[in-house]
Amino acid sequence: MEEKIYIIGHKNPDTDSICSAIAYAELKKKQGDKREIIPARSGDINDETGFILKKFNIDPPSLLKDATGKKIILVDHSEPKQRPENSDKGEIIEVIDHHNINFQQATPILFHAEPLGSTSTIIARMYFEKNIDIEKGIAGILLGAIISDTVIFRSPITTQEDKDIAQKLKPIAEVDDLEAFGIEMFKAKSNWKEKSAHDIINTDYKEYELGGKNIGISQIETVDTSNLKERKDEFIEIMEHMSKERNLDTIIVLLTDIIKEGCLAFISGNSLEQIGKTFGKEIKDNEIYLPGVLSRKKQIVPPLEKAFSQ
Amino acid sequence: MEEKIYIIGHKNPDTDSICSAIAYAELKKKQGDKREIIPARSGDINDETGFILKKFNIDPPSLLKDATGKKIILVDHSEPKQRPENSDKGEIIEVIDHHNINFQQATPILFHAEPLGSTSTIIARMYFEKNIDIEKGIAGILLGAIISDTVIFRSPITTQEDKDIAQKLKPIAEVDDLEAFGIEMFKAKSNWKEKSAHDIINTDYKEYELGGKNIGISQIETVDTSNLKERKDEFIEIMEHMSKERNLDTIIVLLTDIIKEGCLAFISGNSLEQIGKTFGKEIKDNEIYLPGVLSRKKQIVPPLEKAFSQ
Repeated sequence: MEEKIYIIGHKNPDTDSICSAIAYAELKKKQGDKREIIPARSGDINDETGFILKKFNIDPPSLLKDATGKKIILVDHSEPKQRPENSDKGEIIEVIDHHNINFQQATPILFHAEPLGSTSTIIARMYFEKNIDIEKGIAGILLGAIISDTVIFRSPITTQEDKDIAQKLKPIAEVDDLEAFGIEMFKAKSNWKEKSAHDIINTDYKEYELGGKNIGISQIETVDTSNLKERKDEFIEIMEHMSKERNLDTIIVLLTDIIKEGCLAFISGNSLEQIGKTFGKEIKDNEIYLPGVLSRKKQIVPPLEKAFSQ
Repeated sequence: MEEKIYIIGHKNPDTDSICSAIAYAELKKKQGDKREIIPARSGDINDETGFILKKFNIDPPSLLKDATGKKIILVDHSEPKQRPENSDKGEIIEVIDHHNINFQQATPILFHAEPLGSTSTIIARMYFEKNIDIEKGIAGILLGAIISDTVIFRSPITTQEDKDIAQKLKPIAEVDDLEAFGIEMFKAKSNWKEKSAHDIINTDYKEYELGGKNIGISQIETVDTSNLKERKDEFIEIMEHMSKERNLDTIIVLLTDIIKEGCLAFISGNSLEQIGKTFGKEIKDNEIYLPGVLSRKKQIVPPLEKAFSQ
């Protein structure tokens, strides 16, 4: 136990970032890795993740605020902006991800990214491929992360492999009904009333560099957008404040209704016209509705990347 | 057979780039991929690769000069500078590699890089993992590529997995003695006498962007450096010419003696002092000897990257 290795997801960690870090650390231990493998997180755990960890009786990972001098394995991201602080002063020794790729490193490492619904799908498959027993709790959080990231298999990022792996995890996690489990999870997350717009926006907020411009995109997945829609002025105010503070070109907040399957987007910044054009709609009063859009990664970022790089 | 997919290695293709492209295309076909999968190359085949393809009776891949509008799978590289021309006007749909990583793409794709001795090791393992029969010829070229990239298992990039996979390929390829096969291969490649310094340098030449500077590094693996050393003036002249033409900060030519296990490096450009310091030696008359150095990827590029980014 000489060497410490931290496995860590992206900033503003979501369920997949937290659960894949825990499950991958456990896998490495079960494979006999002699190093001290520590699952970690870059920020607070959201209500949904808290609900899942509690349900399966799994401890949350420890907080790693600064990666200076640390050896880290990135899960669920590769983007520099989403890595823990001072990652460039530490050493990235491995990456397992399912997102867009933005990575440069002169030393060759294991880097596996695959366009599946969640990083947890990849980690769960590793257990099955290597014939390593999955305990109930680990199966439960992996299942929760797959259901969370694929929005109960509704998101267009969902693949057959996500569904197959979920079916294999289901009996091990002793979950009877995936749909009911999913709705229960999303309800745990949709408890917005007591939260400030600032906290809601930052729950699942990511920054992207698109064509040289900093774009912030928050996604709020909920079973009902109406309560949030009423608070639009409060949201816009915070968004304008965040734009200045973080030097953003534009900030987008996606209110994703997983029942109606669509996004109401609040948008503030310099590139409203270009963003409206990208999605074939005019942005009125900082607002646009995008029916059928559930995935920031697949339906929002790639068209914006394309539009901004032209 | 609607869609055409090209599998292609880096510019100035070496044996691993050519053979992994052929073997990966074959694997995809055997897995029932319905698309038209075409192994391709970005440039001329070198003498070593030609020797291996002929020995195992495998056709060379077709030349793809321009990737505009093409769907491509990159093998054995991810660096923009090493991709085929106009790759940015085509679509990269997958990457399998064992080098440093330099990659940005907004659309998630399968990207698997692993610090093994060759890309062919990864491709061969896929055949074994998926229980897909390997034909003698394919086993032979994969084995040749592993032996080439690992310098008959002498290079520090060699892993236990490269050796294990080579041992599994050996009976299928009907090769009796890996060492003898390797020496035969490197001799086929060491036929420098009839070649111009320009052609020798460009046989395995790669460009890197290190700390904002363009550095060209050629590696010439040979069983005897003495004939090449005598032609130093001719080399330096060509190197100076290439530097101007390609806007290089510095150009390095590594004469790698695989028997003595070391590199004689010719170096020309602006950063001689910094490069000398990086390797703890003074560069005299554009020359430096690096004992024990066999791998550009592991022993040259990472220390230079570190030095140039400071």
